[in-house]
Amino acid sequence: MDLNLARMSKNENLVLGVDPGTAITGYGLVWGEGDNLRLVDYGAITTSSDESQPQRLQEIYRQLTALIQERQPAAAAVEKLFFSRNVRTALSVGQARGVALLAIANAEIAVHEYTPLEVKQAVVGYGRATKEQVQEMVKRLLGLDSVPQPDDAADAIAVAICHIHSARMKDFARRAEEIERR
Amino acid sequence: MDLNLARMSKNENLVLGVDPGTAITGYGLVWGEGDNLRLVDYGAITTSSDESQPQRLQEIYRQLTALIQERQPAAAAVEKLFFSRNVRTALSVGQARGVALLAIANAEIAVHEYTPLEVKQAVVGYGRATKEQVQEMVKRLLGLDSVPQPDDAADAIAVAICHIHSARMKDFARRAEEIERR
Repeated sequence: MDLNLARMSKNENLVLGVDPGTAITGYGLVWGEGDNLRLVDYGAITTSSDESQPQRLQEIYRQLTALIQERQPAAAAVEKLFFSRNVRTALSVGQARGVALLAIANAEIAVHEYTPLEVKQAVVGYGRATKEQVQEMVKRLLGLDSVPQPDDAADAIAVAICHIHSARMKDFARRAEEIERR
Repeated sequence: MDLNLARMSKNENLVLGVDPGTAITGYGLVWGEGDNLRLVDYGAITTSSDESQPQRLQEIYRQLTALIQERQPAAAAVEKLFFSRNVRTALSVGQARGVALLAIANAEIAVHEYTPLEVKQAVVGYGRATKEQVQEMVKRLLGLDSVPQPDDAADAIAVAICHIHSARMKDFARRAEEIERR
């Protein structure tokens, strides 16, 4: 088998979660099949305020692109954002988010977006769960000894888990429909 | 002379102005030497709301990158943004702005940012000028018969003119300093 082809094939059950921000962009790679979840990689891309905005965006784009090339996830998930502390923060988060979405799209991976409510519902089973409850469940679901750090990485992992659950639910629904049709 | 090398060399007095937005990203290419200004190209990259966000961002990135490769501007200018109608608009503008800054940075062109006040000051000579006054001056300074359309393109041209003026002022100041030192 051609090694290049092997490198290019996507890992079917691997999902990349991203929590974008100009200073810190958290990421998490979760492998999932049924109830079986495994944390493959996680971390944060950090950029310095000493650098210019375009340089920081370049850094986020480069590192995310490199991560995708290395891990070849089959899908990506990002939190949908409607609000923010203020307009200035929204502009800054928006810039990082735009570059993250572009890196994923340019790698020809589908991006799925979930509201904070959907993430909490999927991970904790309760839409009004606190940030701490989400992190605790991330730890438990992945069988970890402690909550992954920094928070941005834990948030990115949570949205990846949300996508795996959601994809599974859709799969259940499709199969149930098929059975009914028989 | 190598044609490829010729294509790669940047046009020294050519400035790209960009006014980013997810639905419409205006652009203008202004050539300037002293008081001599010439509009080389302008227009807008439009994306459809039928497309997904990542697809729209990809479109903006692709078209801006192609424009830069074709025209080879030496510098780029973008308006600094601090405010927006609301947080949702700010997130959307931020995403388009992030992708535009990335396209410019990846083409190895320096990006200069100017506040709306600086743009008005440079183009009209009056920081509280209206949008219409700015557009009218853009028309006059470039010797055009009418205001360039759409508004987003006119705004992009204005920020390019602002950069040319500002670079010229810095040049004056540097020369004045040199004369004093003699």
